Amino acid sequence: MTRYERGMKKLEEIDGQAGQAVVDGLRDIAPDFAHYLIEFPFGDIYSRPGLDLESREIATIAALTAMGTAAPQLKVHIAAGLNVGLTREQITETIMQMAVYAGFPAALNGLFAAREVFAAH
Amino acid sequence: MTRYERGMKKLEEIDGQAGQAVVDGLRDIAPDFAHYLIEFPFGDIYSRPGLDLESREIATIAALTAMGTAAPQLKVHIAAGLNVGLTREQITETIMQMAVYAGFPAALNGLFAAREVFAAH
Amino acid sequence: MTRYERGMKKLEEIDGQAGQAVVDGLRDIAPDFAHYLIEFPFGDIYSRPGLDLESREIATIAALTAMGTAAPQLKVHIAAGLNVGLTREQITETIMQMAVYAGFPAALNGLFAAREVFAAH
Amino acid sequence: MTRYERGMKKLEEIDGQAGQAVVDGLRDIAPDFAHYLIEFPFGDIYSRPGLDLESREIATIAALTAMGTAAPQLKVHIAAGLNVGLTREQITETIMQMAVYAGFPAALNGLFAAREVFAAH
Amino acid sequence: MTRYERGMKKLEEIDGQAGQAVVDGLRDIAPDFAHYLIEFPFGDIYSRPGLDLESREIATIAALTAMGTAAPQLKVHIAAGLNVGLTREQITETIMQMAVYAGFPAALNGLFAAREVFAAH
Amino acid sequence: MTRYERGMKKLEEIDGQAGQAVVDGLRDIAPDFAHYLIEFPFGDIYSRPGLDLESREIATIAALTAMGTAAPQLKVHIAAGLNVGLTREQITETIMQMAVYAGFPAALNGLFAAREVFAAH
Repeated sequence: MTRYERGMKKLEEIDGQAGQAVVDGLRDIAPDFAHYLIEFPFGDIYSRPGLDLESREIATIAALTAMGTAAPQLKVHIAAGLNVGLTREQITETIMQMAVYAGFPAALNGLFAAREVFAAH
Repeated sequence: MTRYERGMKKLEEIDGQAGQAVVDGLRDIAPDFAHYLIEFPFGDIYSRPGLDLESREIATIAALTAMGTAAPQLKVHIAAGLNVGLTREQITETIMQMAVYAGFPAALNGLFAAREVFAAH
Repeated sequence: MTRYERGMKKLEEIDGQAGQAVVDGLRDIAPDFAHYLIEFPFGDIYSRPGLDLESREIATIAALTAMGTAAPQLKVHIAAGLNVGLTREQITETIMQMAVYAGFPAALNGLFAAREVFAAH
Repeated sequence: MTRYERGMKKLEEIDGQAGQAVVDGLRDIAPDFAHYLIEFPFGDIYSRPGLDLESREIATIAALTAMGTAAPQLKVHIAAGLNVGLTREQITETIMQMAVYAGFPAALNGLFAAREVFAAH
Repeated sequence: MTRYERGMKKLEEIDGQAGQAVVDGLRDIAPDFAHYLIEFPFGDIYSRPGLDLESREIATIAALTAMGTAAPQLKVHIAAGLNVGLTREQITETIMQMAVYAGFPAALNGLFAAREVFAAH
Repeated sequence: MTRYERGMKKLEEIDGQAGQAVVDGLRDIAPDFAHYLIEFPFGDIYSRPGLDLESREIATIAALTAMGTAAPQLKVHIAAGLNVGLTREQITETIMQMAVYAGFPAALNGLFAAREVFAAH
């Protein structure tokens, strides 16, 4: 199995359909970047043993909430968190905790993203 | 039990001695801030049910690695991660994953912080 | 008076109706977080003596402009600045100064937020 | 030639009409800031010898992509890059490279901005 | 009076000797940048009416604490705050408030910078 | 030629010895991460046609200066810039320009990093 195949399989496990949508969205601007996106994050990193997918999604939700610069990707990973088995409570607890490390606005914006994703789920 | 007492108990569970050191370090500059630090992050947030301490430390290590602006606090929480039962592997996996979301320099600086904390442990 | 009561009173003094709107917005996603938001920022911090509310709003407007990751909260605090007695000039001077510390795009985006808030006021 | 005249000339060389639009947009909120924006960035910095305009736009596109807090300005500079002679490929390569330094979401959001600017060009 | 002269006078009013030290430090790497640093921030911005120097230093201390990427400059402006008449309490209140907007680590690192500056003053 | 071999060759072209030093530094904490670091940034990205190495280093120096969270990596890439043929002037111009986009402290800290690298070169 190539890195791309392994990454695509992992991405589907995590994101359902969202993975293919990103690949499609990059087709006319940077098709090679879609390959890198499948290969390194999903084929290399998320496919590693040593940290389960629930914990990986907690880490990603925490980081994207704290950074506050990647709203679309935060929403994708809140949905991914639900997909891999996190409860809504685990997700909102993770986001609320970011008030401590990145301030209340970061946590508030994360919670509003979660509300939107939960409503659509 | 007051928020302060609950926070101090939780901080000792997580950080061992490090909590008292921070309180002492703030005594001559902003003693009230030491209270807030015990009360809100530890008395309110970390004391909540709904997310276990291992997951809370994964979230914090991820966020502080990604932000890249809080090296001393990242080291405290890498040590805290070990204290609450995370393996070294879980911690380095969390940090490595941040290369995807915050870039390779953030992950590299996080790994070097972990190397330092692991060596002292 | 509890921290929550003191915070709610302070928040109303600063934000008028906006405080209740945020509490309402959190009700179905993270009601406890609304409590923390009233208690720590407003019940603890903004209620402290030692820095007047005008100065506190200058500090917040400066920080949120510089960070550039919290547009909704920046707008709330530009309105709050007017509420506590800052002039439009003091607010735009604060935002313009951020060009020095966080770059021209941060200041520009802050000024456009102020234009929007001033127009609605 | 004053700094303002030199800056306006340079800005027109780089941005075409976009410069005048920004000046107009600031007229009712902070007209002096429009002057600073013409004078320091364009009259002082972009007018310096020692780095050609293509390289200056690569630097700006890279920085704004990596920071992730200035979407409108990133779009202006992607268009400016095309104006001063960068190819679409040079621009997308610059943005893709930011995945290494600021993470995949920053690069993705930059690529989507480029797709929008290229389509309108 | 030129912008440079006005800026140098303002910088001395704010920073005492620190201004000349920065100019000297840039001499062998980027002497022109020392000129820009005197002219735009101090000759243009800090020399404007409409916001007093105490408020300007509160804005700068708040922003640099929140950003967390400019420790040397934060220390310069904590000292500058004392020079223009802020009390230690006003400075520590400003920094503590940043816990709300940028998280506890940012505020902690700001307080430790203040402790260092106050001790040397 | 594998991605790792291509990456190692490219990294040596850019960084001279520094590449091997990073690989060595990761050996006892996260040896797999050294592989990713060679493979994705250098084997995939820097090896792409469409943007020459001088432009790639300008992009990286700009981004790391603007971000302000990766001082060690900024120094490595200032040295790399010299290695691939950038002049000192091109490097300082790139860094100075970041005052416009990320503020004067970011540019100042970048210039001081350049002074250190140039002195050691």
